[in-house]
Amino acid sequence: MKVGGKHYRTIREVEDGAAVEVIDQRRLPHEFVITRLHSLDDAAQAIKSMTVRGAPLIGVTAAYGLVLQFREDPSDDALDRAYDTLLQTRPTAINLRWALNRMRDVFKPLKPAERFEKGRKLAAQLCDEDSALNETIGQHGFEIFKTLFGKKRACLNILTHCNAGWLGCVDWGTALAPIYKAHDSGIPVHVWVDETRPRNQGASLTAWELGQHGIPHTVIVDNAGGHLMQHGLVDLCIVGTDRTTARGDVCNKIGTYLKALAAHDNNIPFYVALPSSTIDWTIQDGLAEIPIEQRSGDEVGKIPGRAADGSIQTVSILPHGTPVANYGFDVTPARYVTALITERGICKATAEDLARLFQK
Amino acid sequence: MKVGGKHYRTIREVEDGAAVEVIDQRRLPHEFVITRLHSLDDAAQAIKSMTVRGAPLIGVTAAYGLVLQFREDPSDDALDRAYDTLLQTRPTAINLRWALNRMRDVFKPLKPAERFEKGRKLAAQLCDEDSALNETIGQHGFEIFKTLFGKKRACLNILTHCNAGWLGCVDWGTALAPIYKAHDSGIPVHVWVDETRPRNQGASLTAWELGQHGIPHTVIVDNAGGHLMQHGLVDLCIVGTDRTTARGDVCNKIGTYLKALAAHDNNIPFYVALPSSTIDWTIQDGLAEIPIEQRSGDEVGKIPGRAADGSIQTVSILPHGTPVANYGFDVTPARYVTALITERGICKATAEDLARLFQK
Repeated sequence: MKVGGKHYRTIREVEDGAAVEVIDQRRLPHEFVITRLHSLDDAAQAIKSMTVRGAPLIGVTAAYGLVLQFREDPSDDALDRAYDTLLQTRPTAINLRWALNRMRDVFKPLKPAERFEKGRKLAAQLCDEDSALNETIGQHGFEIFKTLFGKKRACLNILTHCNAGWLGCVDWGTALAPIYKAHDSGIPVHVWVDETRPRNQGASLTAWELGQHGIPHTVIVDNAGGHLMQHGLVDLCIVGTDRTTARGDVCNKIGTYLKALAAHDNNIPFYVALPSSTIDWTIQDGLAEIPIEQRSGDEVGKIPGRAADGSIQTVSILPHGTPVANYGFDVTPARYVTALITERGICKATAEDLARLFQK
Repeated sequence: MKVGGKHYRTIREVEDGAAVEVIDQRRLPHEFVITRLHSLDDAAQAIKSMTVRGAPLIGVTAAYGLVLQFREDPSDDALDRAYDTLLQTRPTAINLRWALNRMRDVFKPLKPAERFEKGRKLAAQLCDEDSALNETIGQHGFEIFKTLFGKKRACLNILTHCNAGWLGCVDWGTALAPIYKAHDSGIPVHVWVDETRPRNQGASLTAWELGQHGIPHTVIVDNAGGHLMQHGLVDLCIVGTDRTTARGDVCNKIGTYLKALAAHDNNIPFYVALPSSTIDWTIQDGLAEIPIEQRSGDEVGKIPGRAADGSIQTVSILPHGTPVANYGFDVTPARYVTALITERGICKATAEDLARLFQK
């Protein structure tokens, strides 16, 4: 999508495959810095340090990490070591393993001398596929927006939580893709952006990418969405998901469940946009079967931002030694999800409808 | 309640009425500083700058503001001017007008020479009344805790939002009073403290006062409460209220409604503790009839805290120029309130039960 009027993707190859450019997302929203990765170690470090984040983008960055390795040493040994190094960067990210396995399956049978050039093509293909898949999700979601706009004939107010935008993918995003499609097609939209404590991905990433693309938006605290819904100020909610069960329970950033409850209480549709790679067909009951990651309390107690002198500083907001609990995700039961928007189309959040949409 | 093992109130007269000591709440939780107010202007400034906050405490501080004025000039003119000055500090606080009117009604008929000594007595009486009233709320709420503990026979997990503690009153607090009563009586309690964005009163004030009194607690982001309730980690919720309608709708800090929805969805009792002075008998429908204050977006975008060097700094978390909406309160419909805990006792959040409890 656009940054300062120019189209960007989150990642791209440069210097004939000798380097990869990524947006340093740790410095957003305060600085827009593009950084170059020149080696496997650079790529691994970029994932580990969250210079890049978001499951699809992590997968593609890992693929480019292999390519950078092949340029220096395309041997079988080097391939195996690079695979292990990259896999260990973020062990829970689904797409990381998926992308690495896909690359390895292709490269193992090849002669080492072929691996670098073939790798460049495959990594570029992964980028294009991710972008196309998310654009398709955007197109399906756009149909919902069109119908709603046909009824309302006025600006659609959309509430989203966290960042399920292009910054977490290669382009388009998942939950934000239909919003970009609607805006670009001339449907007036306005987005309520939950700041999304504790890591503030809404305030720092979603607000930034919507602003850069020129989409009207307003940041609110996570506490405010219910009040807005009670007063008719939200026409629909749309969020992403990190893991979706076979019956449609949705595990997403902590706080998603509270917004789904408020949407339900106020008869507002609550949509979840997802690539089918997030569906875990082996489980049904999200509350019982999905382990919820507990993260460092420092994410709650210490907040980074821009100080008065322009420097980036971190401030502590808690009394010294205060105990903190920090759960990364929660589960929204399928009964509160109006529909799932996937690359195959839209379906109800039920085992039957999901199975029907994804039968071969 | 206790600070460092010693009993404190939020306000007290010193120097034979020549000064009033208050806790500087702007500096919590990072520093515990007691500051002296020596004049009407000091008192007005303390209210305006939120050195003191919380409706009951504001009322009492204003009363002492009049006393400090009488020491210098007890004339009718001075009384009228002091009344106006104090009333303008926080025009929306209910208890401010109530306390000022009560003081003025007493002083108007008195000879100026009597006003200072009489004022000292009346202000001290207001403090004692506020403390006793909140202790009574605590005693009534304690009965609920006792019953619950009788069933569970293990530590009670309580979730609260914002600061309805002794820091907002003279002593005890409203929602926290039953928690202090339970703890002091030997019932094991643990409090989940919502950080309460945007002003973080949970993280900075509730966590501090519970910690000082020795009550086990854990700070969480506002997004986390639903997840905790889904997993059986909350036994009851208890919050305060800024305004309660005659039928029991509750207007409290933004985000309260979302917690009430989650409690309802998980069959967890949701209590609201209040002095009857917060009941607005003239209105029924909180959503339609209570205007919701919109505050500065800077409260969302700029966060104060302790920097690495120990200094207090404010950091900006948003992209430059991002639009922000900041609603101070929301309304929880009476159907999501299990019961109201008042100084007269406990009642259902219905027009009938409220009227019955408060009939003369």
